[in-house]
Amino acid sequence: MDSNADPTLASPGPTLGVVGGGQLGRMLGEAAGPLGVEIVVSDPTPDCPARPVVRDQVVGDFDDEATIRELAERADVLTYEIELADPDALERVARETGTPVHPDPATLRTIQDKLVQNRAFADAGIPIPEFRRIDDAGELRAAGEELGWPVMLKARTGGYDGRGNLPVEGPDDAAAAMEGIGGPALAEAFVEFDRELAVIGVRGAEDRRTFPVTETVHREEILRESVSPARTDGATRERAGAVARDVLAEMDGRGVYGIELFEREGEILVNEVAPRPHNSGHWTIEGCLTSQFEQHVRAVLGWPLGSTERRSPTVSANVLGDVDEPEPAELRNVRRALAEPGLSLHWYGKREVRPLRKMGHVTAVAGTGEDVGSLLTRTRGVRDSLTFRPD
Amino acid sequence: MDSNADPTLASPGPTLGVVGGGQLGRMLGEAAGPLGVEIVVSDPTPDCPARPVVRDQVVGDFDDEATIRELAERADVLTYEIELADPDALERVARETGTPVHPDPATLRTIQDKLVQNRAFADAGIPIPEFRRIDDAGELRAAGEELGWPVMLKARTGGYDGRGNLPVEGPDDAAAAMEGIGGPALAEAFVEFDRELAVIGVRGAEDRRTFPVTETVHREEILRESVSPARTDGATRERAGAVARDVLAEMDGRGVYGIELFEREGEILVNEVAPRPHNSGHWTIEGCLTSQFEQHVRAVLGWPLGSTERRSPTVSANVLGDVDEPEPAELRNVRRALAEPGLSLHWYGKREVRPLRKMGHVTAVAGTGEDVGSLLTRTRGVRDSLTFRPD
Repeated sequence: MDSNADPTLASPGPTLGVVGGGQLGRMLGEAAGPLGVEIVVSDPTPDCPARPVVRDQVVGDFDDEATIRELAERADVLTYEIELADPDALERVARETGTPVHPDPATLRTIQDKLVQNRAFADAGIPIPEFRRIDDAGELRAAGEELGWPVMLKARTGGYDGRGNLPVEGPDDAAAAMEGIGGPALAEAFVEFDRELAVIGVRGAEDRRTFPVTETVHREEILRESVSPARTDGATRERAGAVARDVLAEMDGRGVYGIELFEREGEILVNEVAPRPHNSGHWTIEGCLTSQFEQHVRAVLGWPLGSTERRSPTVSANVLGDVDEPEPAELRNVRRALAEPGLSLHWYGKREVRPLRKMGHVTAVAGTGEDVGSLLTRTRGVRDSLTFRPD
Repeated sequence: MDSNADPTLASPGPTLGVVGGGQLGRMLGEAAGPLGVEIVVSDPTPDCPARPVVRDQVVGDFDDEATIRELAERADVLTYEIELADPDALERVARETGTPVHPDPATLRTIQDKLVQNRAFADAGIPIPEFRRIDDAGELRAAGEELGWPVMLKARTGGYDGRGNLPVEGPDDAAAAMEGIGGPALAEAFVEFDRELAVIGVRGAEDRRTFPVTETVHREEILRESVSPARTDGATRERAGAVARDVLAEMDGRGVYGIELFEREGEILVNEVAPRPHNSGHWTIEGCLTSQFEQHVRAVLGWPLGSTERRSPTVSANVLGDVDEPEPAELRNVRRALAEPGLSLHWYGKREVRPLRKMGHVTAVAGTGEDVGSLLTRTRGVRDSLTFRPD
């Protein structure tokens, strides 16, 4: 099924095997249903978040080859919703079973090592912060002198949701920072951005598309809100879209990519790229003619892509664990969110809430004449009324 | 769980047991996922249409009490997506297991017998076509003389999708018509309507809401397209909404109701009512802030209802079996539908296509400035390009 430009629909439909059954796998399942596409996920947690809305789950680690092989044998196409997937295992299984994997595991391999990724972007002329390879505290101190303090120290592999990123203030903090990161790293010039932006891009069998530019708001390096349209000027939005299209051109293989950007004095720098649907694109479920999840399903199956047009100004806000200790998840005060006009609730189905864990999100579309700033205030108000703490 | 005005969300979430796992059960499942609500369906067909997108299926007949009991034991609330459910069995199971059923089985009992339903509406002053109880051909001939020929002969029980409805031209056709209907019936004055309309209503634990008035287009008594807003004048839309609210006030118990209406010279008559999400409301998935399916889930759980506001002019068109004989379903030429901007595809997952069987639908939302008439033409064009016939 490497090109499928005029698909037929039958029952059972084509089956998509997804490595990872967290919230992204769950939302892929929710998007696949109407298309008649069946989903089987693999995840180490029995009864993972995606399980109740998909055909089946294979229980096993993300990088366990026997698990991936079982998934491949039950699927027409393999994909993954987590960067921790093992590109070597994916490639071997694809070769042995004949089940194609999208995006190409080579992309995953590049993206998993931030140094390799940055070098590839630099070679392609894509604007990124200045960076240095860092293997010890001495190199970190030297990089700080060259790039100017502070610098952002990033683990080359294994980071997500801000984990593996550590701002370093000066040479005296270098040794402790290297210990904190605990492995091969890179240092990036610290970007005093005016705004963070994100673009969801999708590569299909025949063409590439990008969604409208989104403004993202982070706190403690975790995404809190996505705002579309981004509250910046038209020229900057254009520039962000152009940079995102350049990034997308560098990626191998079909699927959705989340492209995170810095805006600084009208210039755009690429911050991170994820080869999968991305938190900054959850707003597309209600906000666009086709969601990022449906686009990913279409892309990996080789189907025509849908329109990425925005229907209305839209804001998403994450519901994070506001607890001090892990505990069984129970979200309270849901009444207000359910009653809020134009607000949609997305619960991820995780059994346990942990501090700052992503447990769900809410998305609100603008009422007639409502601007995106008011919508953001309103959405935050509803989100902030939700809590895992008993009264 | 008889009132649940400030719900909490946990994992696993509340479980809704749905009698019936056809396309309505499937779309209930698609709507329930984001809310963290789990669905178990019962259906006699193993691997029924809803199965791939819900938690589980109990295999058994719609009126089999052991099946309903098993469903009730696994659910927090029971509901049904098919009028063939057995109200007596539902009531007994609810009493024995303590699992509430919504809508109230008494409503189902009323609606299952069209004579009882018509009498209840007449008593409540709700406008309906003139009707007579018919038990034999002599009564049918007498009714025709009184009401004027032709009349619409309707089976009192068991009809759906136009099955069980038979227009009778004159007294000579009476005997054959009674044989065709094959049981107790009623005759209604034939309504020379200008237009057919429909309103989806929802009764929650605390309030009732109606969706915007929809125009419906039938052929061979089967719904083909739904158009919202209805292409009639504002006063008629108002009147249709008011009649629908009167109907909703007569219904017992929480849930979504599909209310089909005739428009004749600006007057509104009630044609049929179904105590469940209805084909004429499928457009609400993309067209409204909250879909009829999400409203049904909210209503039967006792949660606050969502806004019924329309987001854009919207048209849905059914994809029916265009075959002469039952055969394994394979829908062809899907490329154009997938590529059409603003068009969403809904495949129901049925294994077998049969003549005129509902196999899926497409919904299109209007582009900027596009009127609903052009949208209808465009949507029909795409729908008509889909076929189950090989080239």
